[in-house]
Amino acid sequence: MPLVVVGSVAFDSVETPTQKRENVLGGSAVFFSYAASYFTSVRLAGVVGDDWPAAYTQLLAARGIDTTGLQVVRGGKTFRWRGRYLPNMNDRQTLDLQLNVMEQFNPVLPERYRQCKVLFLANGSPQLQMRVLDQCPGAALVVADTMDYYIHNERDSLLVLLRRIDGLVLNDSEAKLLTGEENLVRAGHAVCRMGPRLVVIKKGEHGAMFFSQHETHVLPAYPTPNVVDPTGAGDSFAGGMMGYLAKQGNFEPKTLKEAMGYGIVAASFTVEDFSLDRLKQIDRDDLDKRMAEFRRMLSF
Amino acid sequence: MPLVVVGSVAFDSVETPTQKRENVLGGSAVFFSYAASYFTSVRLAGVVGDDWPAAYTQLLAARGIDTTGLQVVRGGKTFRWRGRYLPNMNDRQTLDLQLNVMEQFNPVLPERYRQCKVLFLANGSPQLQMRVLDQCPGAALVVADTMDYYIHNERDSLLVLLRRIDGLVLNDSEAKLLTGEENLVRAGHAVCRMGPRLVVIKKGEHGAMFFSQHETHVLPAYPTPNVVDPTGAGDSFAGGMMGYLAKQGNFEPKTLKEAMGYGIVAASFTVEDFSLDRLKQIDRDDLDKRMAEFRRMLSF
Repeated sequence: MPLVVVGSVAFDSVETPTQKRENVLGGSAVFFSYAASYFTSVRLAGVVGDDWPAAYTQLLAARGIDTTGLQVVRGGKTFRWRGRYLPNMNDRQTLDLQLNVMEQFNPVLPERYRQCKVLFLANGSPQLQMRVLDQCPGAALVVADTMDYYIHNERDSLLVLLRRIDGLVLNDSEAKLLTGEENLVRAGHAVCRMGPRLVVIKKGEHGAMFFSQHETHVLPAYPTPNVVDPTGAGDSFAGGMMGYLAKQGNFEPKTLKEAMGYGIVAASFTVEDFSLDRLKQIDRDDLDKRMAEFRRMLSF
Repeated sequence: MPLVVVGSVAFDSVETPTQKRENVLGGSAVFFSYAASYFTSVRLAGVVGDDWPAAYTQLLAARGIDTTGLQVVRGGKTFRWRGRYLPNMNDRQTLDLQLNVMEQFNPVLPERYRQCKVLFLANGSPQLQMRVLDQCPGAALVVADTMDYYIHNERDSLLVLLRRIDGLVLNDSEAKLLTGEENLVRAGHAVCRMGPRLVVIKKGEHGAMFFSQHETHVLPAYPTPNVVDPTGAGDSFAGGMMGYLAKQGNFEPKTLKEAMGYGIVAASFTVEDFSLDRLKQIDRDDLDKRMAEFRRMLSF
């Protein structure tokens, strides 16, 4: 099944303890769609300014990603994020954020996108996520991401959204903030009670947890010695997971767990270089090899 | 094979965000030996004052733990620790520490202990750990724990110890401190290069990592929704792991990974109540059931 993602497309400037990069390709929808493209056909919706290089559209198209839904705002500037990672490479500070064309973003999905069966609402306001959802009445699996800003400032809208979607992906601190539960197992199940039948809590370098009404799984991250830039890891995780689910076309417990494994493996490649630089070097076979190694590591 | 452990025996006073306990049974050798006793016969060496209740000796003896090596210092007071857990239940502050009889502790192992094949040197100064090691020349597997204090203040002795032992168990921040590596995969292998052929990095609620020259495994913690008091989790982990290894009598990669699984499962029971209160309620069958569930959770 084709997979539609709506989210941010950005220029990232990143400092790590040892290196820095200026204005490299980033954004939730970019990392998501690139990772997902190894599994299924992906349709990306987002917005950029006219500072957006055609080469980036070509880079996405080269992986079969449909960018018909990428709006280009004449005279506008693309969303920019600047951040710095602490020495632990897990925590980061946002140094600057320029929403630019994202501020007025009102996604209008092309007809081909509206017939999608699998939809991922990457980070955005719950209001915007619901406007997208309204355009895809036939979606069989709708999963959203959210962040602390919306939990704090748009909680009511978020709670409405949660009753309309199948799955929510969020990180550990966000799950605690949303539910008031410090224990992540309790937090995951508390999010399930807010609506979504599937909840995934991302724990960065510590992996991810999966919850449904009667299930709790935890998988560690794939242990790579080579963490260069964690930017996009969470979005690549979601992309690998959703891409595999869309490809398989079923959302059975077994498929969901495999999907989480592929998400973890996709993220483990992303962090090995800046931007898409590592993901660009791999093919599906590299993902499968690392996935096999990950399975072996966890079987005993 | 019988298993010898030398470490602390303590009275713990613990505050969590919702509860507190005064002067409950604790100490590294206590949690370790209790968890290990589900797998093999355990011989405990430590020191207490004459404030030590006979009932505690009986509690250990009831699980077959040999306490011949538990010295009682007349007129002395047992080691006391007081701590408070932060709301995340992973980080804690030490509020008070009274070494008491531990300060002069000089373990002299009974003859039966000296013939041991498997030895665990729980938290203590590297000098003391080496004095114990000298008494067990025939040990086939010697594993030690350490802590930040000794890494800071007795680094040279610790480095000598590391060249004499087979395995080291330490937590994530200690591994970073010892090696100067922020990435835990690199840190684990860097510790291996300091001497031990097996290294286990404990990550608290995030599980544990295993390293040998050619291997890297990561296992998550067992996801319990019911974390009451994390005190003793790391020692119970080591006890479950070493107990299983001693029982199996081989240290093959497959056995080591299973042992790590049993360590994680033992720790998951410990945190479900204060002191030994939860561990006291279980039997080997409960450990096996949770282990089977843990294996299922990780297989996909």
